[in-house]
Amino acid sequence: MAAELDLDADLVTLTRAVCDIPSVSGDERELADAVESALRRQPHLEVLRDGDAVVARTNLGRESRVVVAGHLDTVPIADNLPTRLVGDELWGRGTVDMLGGVAVALALAARVPAPTRDVTWVFYDHEEVEAELNGLGRLVRHHPDWLACDFAVLGEPSNGGIEGGCNGTLRAQVRLHGVAAHSARAWTGVNAIHAAGEVLRRLEAYEPRTVDVDGLAYRESMNAVLVSGGTAANVIPDECVVTVNYRFAPALDVAGAEAHVRELFDGFDVVVTDAAAGARPGLDHPAAAQFAAAVLAVTGGVPAPKYGWTDVARFSALGVPAVNFGPGDPLLAHKRDERCPVDQIHATYAALHAWLTA
Amino acid sequence: MAAELDLDADLVTLTRAVCDIPSVSGDERELADAVESALRRQPHLEVLRDGDAVVARTNLGRESRVVVAGHLDTVPIADNLPTRLVGDELWGRGTVDMLGGVAVALALAARVPAPTRDVTWVFYDHEEVEAELNGLGRLVRHHPDWLACDFAVLGEPSNGGIEGGCNGTLRAQVRLHGVAAHSARAWTGVNAIHAAGEVLRRLEAYEPRTVDVDGLAYRESMNAVLVSGGTAANVIPDECVVTVNYRFAPALDVAGAEAHVRELFDGFDVVVTDAAAGARPGLDHPAAAQFAAAVLAVTGGVPAPKYGWTDVARFSALGVPAVNFGPGDPLLAHKRDERCPVDQIHATYAALHAWLTA
Repeated sequence: MAAELDLDADLVTLTRAVCDIPSVSGDERELADAVESALRRQPHLEVLRDGDAVVARTNLGRESRVVVAGHLDTVPIADNLPTRLVGDELWGRGTVDMLGGVAVALALAARVPAPTRDVTWVFYDHEEVEAELNGLGRLVRHHPDWLACDFAVLGEPSNGGIEGGCNGTLRAQVRLHGVAAHSARAWTGVNAIHAAGEVLRRLEAYEPRTVDVDGLAYRESMNAVLVSGGTAANVIPDECVVTVNYRFAPALDVAGAEAHVRELFDGFDVVVTDAAAGARPGLDHPAAAQFAAAVLAVTGGVPAPKYGWTDVARFSALGVPAVNFGPGDPLLAHKRDERCPVDQIHATYAALHAWLTA
Repeated sequence: MAAELDLDADLVTLTRAVCDIPSVSGDERELADAVESALRRQPHLEVLRDGDAVVARTNLGRESRVVVAGHLDTVPIADNLPTRLVGDELWGRGTVDMLGGVAVALALAARVPAPTRDVTWVFYDHEEVEAELNGLGRLVRHHPDWLACDFAVLGEPSNGGIEGGCNGTLRAQVRLHGVAAHSARAWTGVNAIHAAGEVLRRLEAYEPRTVDVDGLAYRESMNAVLVSGGTAANVIPDECVVTVNYRFAPALDVAGAEAHVRELFDGFDVVVTDAAAGARPGLDHPAAAQFAAAVLAVTGGVPAPKYGWTDVARFSALGVPAVNFGPGDPLLAHKRDERCPVDQIHATYAALHAWLTA
């Protein structure tokens, strides 16, 4: 029997119901079906579907339109489903990343039939895997019109605060080359691992920057995340690869980030293996400012920068200001002990409700 | 039908016959059977067997006894069998390491029935694999009396020259520890790969020594042979391991070598994973001096140090001076294009024949 979601249930019950339908990346079908079915029962919404992405929107002719988006997939379950309510915390896979935010959006989609701006609710697949599979990216390619809006909110966990934009990320391999030899006659070879010493020296000496963008301070970092060299314990290694991850403030685009990495490793063989631009917070945009004012009136606090790369960057690339706003501590995402304070689920709902009805 | 070896055949034919019986480590049975059978046909020899090791000896009551030893196994065949005679070179797996030397020993065992010193001919298994499987080591444990002698010659490839003793070898892991974190918030972790920078810096700055032992100059080396660190491209690595190989002159024992490595990496977590002492050349010993004089009268040249670790160290550990002396270039051992000059096979035979009949 197909799973059913009752969007009128209390928020914790709804969050648990969403989490308890397993939806590991690539296996989102059942949850997407349940989401589509529940939204189709709302007469005020137009519902669209592409693969396992579900889009529902009001068509009230408001002056502006906003997107509220969240991904349906989770990282693999680590013996942490079904959900458990322990005191004031909801434990289980997806409670933080990011089915808590999805449940809040589903409840609002049902319960705010006449928002003060038109809303497009976007629920998508394949966020936790390779970028080319990303469901939001697929919607951008297949149906850019479905995503047309003046401002977007992504329900990624932000501890219930507004986290603006995001840092970009770039990975590069610094490849060291040598000449193989038997280690009993080491002097007939050239050691590629020793050559990596200078690469690590530059990384150790590197002073990461903190860059102000639109009033938020983005902290950067430059780290070796992988190193691998050598073929056997009696062979002078002829190759060593240091994989570097540069997390860069949204003041730089990908080309600027690559240039910075190439400058740091000047003289070395550098191959960029993947990169994604960050997103400026755009909080000076009127639609974003309205959102911040309405939300902060409920939650208190001030906007902060988002450090991890999120799909807000996809909106940013479309020229749409976007922020992260969702329940849960991002440091608990993907962990076996993933858990979300129930208070944050309620507070996020209340803040978004205030904004959509202001 | 069991393979047969004709010890009276010409040397190239015999070498090819030995090589063409596949005998990759662990699969030496057929070759060992053929060797045993051929030696049992020699009425002047007493033949003994332990596993796939075959020992044959004269019992002439000479004043001294020497061992001539060689291993029967090879590294895996790389589409380089059966052997091919190309011009003056014999191509194929085992021609260098070390069935050329084995063939020379088999021919001498058959053709010198009354050597001027008693000879124990030793052919053994499992040299090319883990040390604990080594057939010569097993003979030392099971039948130390079979190996009793005043001097030993190991037929490992030495380009037909005398290579005395051997360097020792020690491997150690230098383990760097850190604290894992998501690379988007790198400052919450401690990067273990960056910590390896200082280890590589010390290796780069290290000046390897050349140490005179009994008149031969042993060149040492200290190298990172493997490096591995990190778990994923978005995680600050909490572990990095640099595997270091120290090749040390036989002036040091294993404890001395370990102390040297620990001194170099003072302050780091160092774990010695394996070590084997080298062997002093012992060319000042009378039996060794007699050997050198007889051989060099035929071959010319001067003794050189052996850099690679060989089983001469097992004789050295028994207090027996031992040298490497065999046909073939050790730099071609284990290679796909392994090949041995036919001249060296003949010259090695002639030199050993001169020594055993002097």
